[in-house]
Amino acid sequence: MDTLSSLQQLLNPQKIAVIGASKSKGKVGEIVFRRLMGSRRRLYPVNPKEIVIEGHKVLADIGSLPQDIDLAVITISAAAAVNAVEECAKKGIPNHIIVAGGFGEVGEEGRKLEQKLKNLTRKYNIRILGPNSLGIFLPDENIDTIFVEHGDKALDRKGKVACIVQSGSVGVEALGYASNTGYGMRAFVGLGNKCDLDEIDFLKYFDQDKKTNCLGFYLENIERGREFLDAAKKTTLKKPVVVLKAGMTETAVSAVSSHTGKLAGSDNVISGALKQFGIQRVYDDEEFCDATKVLSMLKQAPGNRVAVLTAAGGYGVMCTDFIEKDENRAPLKMAKLADATKQKIKEATFDFTACENPVDITASADDRMFSQSLDALIADDGVDIVICIAFFAPPGISENLIDIIAEKTNSSDKPVIVFTKYGPFTDNFIKNLYFAGVVGYPSVGRTVRAARFLVERARILKRLGQEE
Amino acid sequence: MDTLSSLQQLLNPQKIAVIGASKSKGKVGEIVFRRLMGSRRRLYPVNPKEIVIEGHKVLADIGSLPQDIDLAVITISAAAAVNAVEECAKKGIPNHIIVAGGFGEVGEEGRKLEQKLKNLTRKYNIRILGPNSLGIFLPDENIDTIFVEHGDKALDRKGKVACIVQSGSVGVEALGYASNTGYGMRAFVGLGNKCDLDEIDFLKYFDQDKKTNCLGFYLENIERGREFLDAAKKTTLKKPVVVLKAGMTETAVSAVSSHTGKLAGSDNVISGALKQFGIQRVYDDEEFCDATKVLSMLKQAPGNRVAVLTAAGGYGVMCTDFIEKDENRAPLKMAKLADATKQKIKEATFDFTACENPVDITASADDRMFSQSLDALIADDGVDIVICIAFFAPPGISENLIDIIAEKTNSSDKPVIVFTKYGPFTDNFIKNLYFAGVVGYPSVGRTVRAARFLVERARILKRLGQEE
Repeated sequence: MDTLSSLQQLLNPQKIAVIGASKSKGKVGEIVFRRLMGSRRRLYPVNPKEIVIEGHKVLADIGSLPQDIDLAVITISAAAAVNAVEECAKKGIPNHIIVAGGFGEVGEEGRKLEQKLKNLTRKYNIRILGPNSLGIFLPDENIDTIFVEHGDKALDRKGKVACIVQSGSVGVEALGYASNTGYGMRAFVGLGNKCDLDEIDFLKYFDQDKKTNCLGFYLENIERGREFLDAAKKTTLKKPVVVLKAGMTETAVSAVSSHTGKLAGSDNVISGALKQFGIQRVYDDEEFCDATKVLSMLKQAPGNRVAVLTAAGGYGVMCTDFIEKDENRAPLKMAKLADATKQKIKEATFDFTACENPVDITASADDRMFSQSLDALIADDGVDIVICIAFFAPPGISENLIDIIAEKTNSSDKPVIVFTKYGPFTDNFIKNLYFAGVVGYPSVGRTVRAARFLVERARILKRLGQEE
Repeated sequence: MDTLSSLQQLLNPQKIAVIGASKSKGKVGEIVFRRLMGSRRRLYPVNPKEIVIEGHKVLADIGSLPQDIDLAVITISAAAAVNAVEECAKKGIPNHIIVAGGFGEVGEEGRKLEQKLKNLTRKYNIRILGPNSLGIFLPDENIDTIFVEHGDKALDRKGKVACIVQSGSVGVEALGYASNTGYGMRAFVGLGNKCDLDEIDFLKYFDQDKKTNCLGFYLENIERGREFLDAAKKTTLKKPVVVLKAGMTETAVSAVSSHTGKLAGSDNVISGALKQFGIQRVYDDEEFCDATKVLSMLKQAPGNRVAVLTAAGGYGVMCTDFIEKDENRAPLKMAKLADATKQKIKEATFDFTACENPVDITASADDRMFSQSLDALIADDGVDIVICIAFFAPPGISENLIDIIAEKTNSSDKPVIVFTKYGPFTDNFIKNLYFAGVVGYPSVGRTVRAARFLVERARILKRLGQEE
């Protein structure tokens, strides 16, 4: 079977064995089995010490499994896991997820175990995700093998971002983080130690996946560097590829070495290469989520001229500061508004409205004024991106503003990004914006940075298009 | 009366008149009066249309007020407010807060009204805060005249930051923002249009205030620039002074002009000047809160060598990236750990612990191991600042970690800053850290930036000390 078909089977299995399934609350084998019970697939728990789990008859050993299992999720510890994989392989199970750590990342003994796993993949022609994998999560397929808490349902709204992460902790926290404020995830894959399947395999898979429109990677090392870059460059012509590559500095490189048992390449080289091949690099999980969110939800920016609409003057000014600040990623410009645009806004609002960009319709504004001013900005040919400052304190501004912005965002080709802040309710507002299809952030800096991700993407496409 | 005594009276008044106090839910005069009812001061509502508000007899006119009122909070609209101030002045009321907008910020008519206010301050020797002021809030004195929602009680824990903000919207959102994750505020002052009292007056006041240990300003223009700088330089030798000065770029300068009706100075000049005079500049309200929080809560950093302790390897690596990244504000270095330190950590944890900095004690660590490793890092003479990555997913790590870190932070001279993230519970953890006296942030980038604020502060003190 080729890799793409294997991954298809691994990510959307019909029959799943859970080696080490358990009834003991909090054990990895218990959590994974419980999560999979929501999948409506056929489950085969295996554990010599259990008889029945939640109505499922437990098999005493791997040998008792039927022949046509698609995936074995192996929740037992390192040395036992290696034996289990071999037994599963002998039963003809083609795909394996190994949760346990204690392999290459913990020294010589672990490295030997990991080598054994590698040998098994060749000997039996099987595929392994992990070891030390956090598991997989695909909301649309009801597949979830992640054994730690990973946030609420705000994730599974027909999301289109495929997140492929090497480190469990970072991955799961990015998940939780994203779920607090709304984030559309197509798939989450914990690569772990990558004894077999790695970022390139999943890059190629999600490149083809119709439900994915943006790929995000958290990587600590890239072993087949050139291959990854070549593949990513192909993907990036269709879908944005974002990489959080820890190990930017010299000290970080040696830290990575001790964390995953593999050496990261010289970071400057990696940084330059990522750029050249059209990959968008980010530096922590906040940036990772912010970038993939905006790239997944919004259309391409036609240019870099930004208009800012606000009912809170101070934020308009700060936003301008961030827009005009020199930034490595992609330069932005304050749009110069057409006279007709200014006239429309004045008519919709007040004589005294500051119609220069940023457009400050003041705290006396109401929903209608905001709406008509936004229309005018979107219609202006000199505007490529609109940043709305949705500030709910003015008495005339109501929560209907969310739907107003959503309607315009969803019917326009121009990206509209929202900055909002509302005391203790900020996260809820951003989540409500998300549910209405609007990209929102809770800080001025992050909102403007999101616009940069869009402009960076547009420039990448332009450059790669010219090279073709 | 000198300005300091006037401000003392304005910020801690015993008898307060509320001009325009109202029973109508949601009106400014209703909100302000309700807030002030919590102050346990004598209140004198004035409104010809009301008779009794919440058991307080309402006076029909300002002329009926007694002679010894300390402060009049004027909640009525612009033109009426000007007349009210004159009447109050005639009654001998020395201090006035004017809430209404509609003055200099809205054009010629408003500018004339504002000039009238200025004239009144001279004619009657009175002080005015505003117009267009959001009001004042001093948790310790139970004084709150802020007419918009501004977050929960997480603010009023013996806070030591004085926030002086020109723009209402930004100020109140910074308040709400801060309150979500814990923030100690000594005072909040909404300057508004500054027809009389301005940033310099409050700078000098909070310079002297024993309950304040850090001053934060949000300013859109600084009219008496040189005077502000000179005064701030004196203050900064005792207490950090942070300025969020909107109007960094050319376009922003003209935006400020339309927002407040005053012209901001050339921003490059301002930026250089702030630096020279030892003022720490920030660029949005997130940075504003992050900076004042860490500067207010932690002792000075003895140097710029940072040790990172983590149970989640990936975050350790990202943290290293941010620490070693070139940054304008203040360079940080990864500390080189002493052999004895590494030995202590190995003994407290595992043979395989990566004892190079960042110290990754792995997800197998427990509270005790974290605690002892932290001890070792704090004791290392080569370490100036410790960043703890408090990641609660590992089974051996419990919420007790918060108290463990707090105990060490509070008994050590070395600053300890925490990065934590825990799915949907992140904000609560940061708030719990705050209540335990620990500074925490929810992103790697922000945590490292906080360390830079401390180092920047130390360098300012060193430089200014040498100039003396």
